[in-house]
Amino acid sequence: MKFGINLFPTVGPHDQAPVDYYDHALSIAVYAEELGYHHVKTVEHYFFEYGGYSPDPTTFLTAVAARTERIRLITGAVVPAFDHPIKLAARLAVLDNVSHGRLDVGVARGFLPDEFAAFQLSLDDSRPRFDATVAAIVELWTGSDVTIDNGFHSFGPVTLQPRPFQSPHPRILVATAITPESAERAGAAGYGLLLVPSINPREKVQDIIARYRVAREAAGFDPATAEVHLSYSSFLADDADEARSLGEQFANTNHRALARAVSGWSTARSTQYEGYEKIVDRVAGGTFATQLAADKTIVGTPAQVVDQIARIREAFGDVTISLQTPPSTAPEAVVRRSVQLFAEDVLPHFSAPVALDGTAPGVAAAAVAPGR
Amino acid sequence: MKFGINLFPTVGPHDQAPVDYYDHALSIAVYAEELGYHHVKTVEHYFFEYGGYSPDPTTFLTAVAARTERIRLITGAVVPAFDHPIKLAARLAVLDNVSHGRLDVGVARGFLPDEFAAFQLSLDDSRPRFDATVAAIVELWTGSDVTIDNGFHSFGPVTLQPRPFQSPHPRILVATAITPESAERAGAAGYGLLLVPSINPREKVQDIIARYRVAREAAGFDPATAEVHLSYSSFLADDADEARSLGEQFANTNHRALARAVSGWSTARSTQYEGYEKIVDRVAGGTFATQLAADKTIVGTPAQVVDQIARIREAFGDVTISLQTPPSTAPEAVVRRSVQLFAEDVLPHFSAPVALDGTAPGVAAAAVAPGR
Repeated sequence: MKFGINLFPTVGPHDQAPVDYYDHALSIAVYAEELGYHHVKTVEHYFFEYGGYSPDPTTFLTAVAARTERIRLITGAVVPAFDHPIKLAARLAVLDNVSHGRLDVGVARGFLPDEFAAFQLSLDDSRPRFDATVAAIVELWTGSDVTIDNGFHSFGPVTLQPRPFQSPHPRILVATAITPESAERAGAAGYGLLLVPSINPREKVQDIIARYRVAREAAGFDPATAEVHLSYSSFLADDADEARSLGEQFANTNHRALARAVSGWSTARSTQYEGYEKIVDRVAGGTFATQLAADKTIVGTPAQVVDQIARIREAFGDVTISLQTPPSTAPEAVVRRSVQLFAEDVLPHFSAPVALDGTAPGVAAAAVAPGR
Repeated sequence: MKFGINLFPTVGPHDQAPVDYYDHALSIAVYAEELGYHHVKTVEHYFFEYGGYSPDPTTFLTAVAARTERIRLITGAVVPAFDHPIKLAARLAVLDNVSHGRLDVGVARGFLPDEFAAFQLSLDDSRPRFDATVAAIVELWTGSDVTIDNGFHSFGPVTLQPRPFQSPHPRILVATAITPESAERAGAAGYGLLLVPSINPREKVQDIIARYRVAREAAGFDPATAEVHLSYSSFLADDADEARSLGEQFANTNHRALARAVSGWSTARSTQYEGYEKIVDRVAGGTFATQLAADKTIVGTPAQVVDQIARIREAFGDVTISLQTPPSTAPEAVVRRSVQLFAEDVLPHFSAPVALDGTAPGVAAAAVAPGR
């Protein structure tokens, strides 16, 4: 297994100045490298307390790249629909070069009606637009005199500069919320998968992962290179009561932010997002106790969390786990202790911390940054 | 006067791997801060050896922000036409926060026909598009529930996150190539000005600056806050012959890159770019000797360059000067020595190097980064 940090802002201007959020996020990212985590990940969202402080993960991760040497940098995820493919392909290539090839590119179709409205885009053609834009980006990264005419963009011939550092291009991971077909398409294309287990029953997550693996193998890709990332909110403390009560408080903060962001689905409908209107109910219906009991949030003492990770491995296999840190408004010492406890007292049970030179004893070479 | 470094890549994949360009640029930026320069600036261009390794200055400058503490970061310039205003406003705001308010935003209308073609945009409406997009960005930075309906974009109401660090927003500088009306419009809006003296006769540059200052004052802005940036290619060496011969070689590299990039104007015409077709002749017509004699490139020993800067001050007043460094393919030691010689033996004749805490003895407080 591999373990990383997911920096997902759930604050707005009434909670925290952006400068304090970025100072915090950058400092946790640097600390994550020191502690031997595999990756730092961050999201792309707009306008709301749900990720809105992170409208461009590539920009922020370039700051992380400049402060770190070894840890992998993952967009979790960028939304290609909101960018011109030349702009996004170029920006990601800059980051891949600044970081000497430490970038993995998570991509998402997007699912918030208010974001699509702001970019004057229809939800109804989001899937073909997503597929076309990701394909255009890969072509721009790898081809010369590229001409794109896909119904959404029409340009070329152009030859993108700079090329990515990694050859032929950085690994692509596709975010899937609740639609198994998305996972199958990601598998068939040879890509990795980004999942958020908390919004689905365990059996559904298992089904999505199984379908992904089957589709990927059927398309001829080596099962050993499949990559499934699960993102969990998390909080660890030395004391069980503190972990539980603060963990619940932090979960509620995240929960409120998500509920507000997805409220657009209370009125929006799209045939391309079957079932998304129920996201409001799912978000509103879960309690912290039920989430914790179902291992949908990782909260407790190190000993309790070791048991949780063991159950998660039992359920989903040797996946990669991204731990969403407590809200950035929590005391810095509390957040750092949580990140530290996991790295020192949980991670070694399932993996080896990654050394500063990128080696990880006991972990396959493919799991760490490729050398230049 | 104030002095900064302009990192302008004039290399392509046959000359230098992108990773080596970025390592070089980042190392020069960090060195520029150590040496007391006022700013680091970088450009936005695509596809060609003329700036094409820098398709997103915001991303690169965020890496510089993470490695520095005091030096100002200037986009020189971003091209708003090639971005959605939400994306560009948000990305710049991230950089302004990561850097604790060290960002000045240079903006340009763009002038390369091939870039406009790649983004499927017409050169003919580039001016209203530029004005509308810059206005939209300022509104997104400062307003709440912003609705934009300007003929190019139609969206809202949205409230951008994060807000910029600087209040009400980062300083805006408008790039003007050869059109005096652009400078007047920049002045009337209270913005600063970015000029490239090498592509115009001295009298024309003086006329552009004068018109800018008149328009700015007529609109009620304090003359003391006017800001004129002149960008020059540069090379200094201890020995006069070495400075001259390497300087000519470097100038030719830059010259070839520019000539290839502007070749689109040999066939393109637009009423909105009167005279731009002559850029090809101007670029092709200049020789290093005539450029040097006219102080259009800054090349020589420190003593020679002190005389050049004195003549430039005489001609244009107390402007801000950005020194384009030698090509990134030049030996690192040669580039660093050039940057060092200017900082140590020229700069003190005209200004005071900026200390790490942002103070600059003898320079007005407005010249340095505003404190938080």
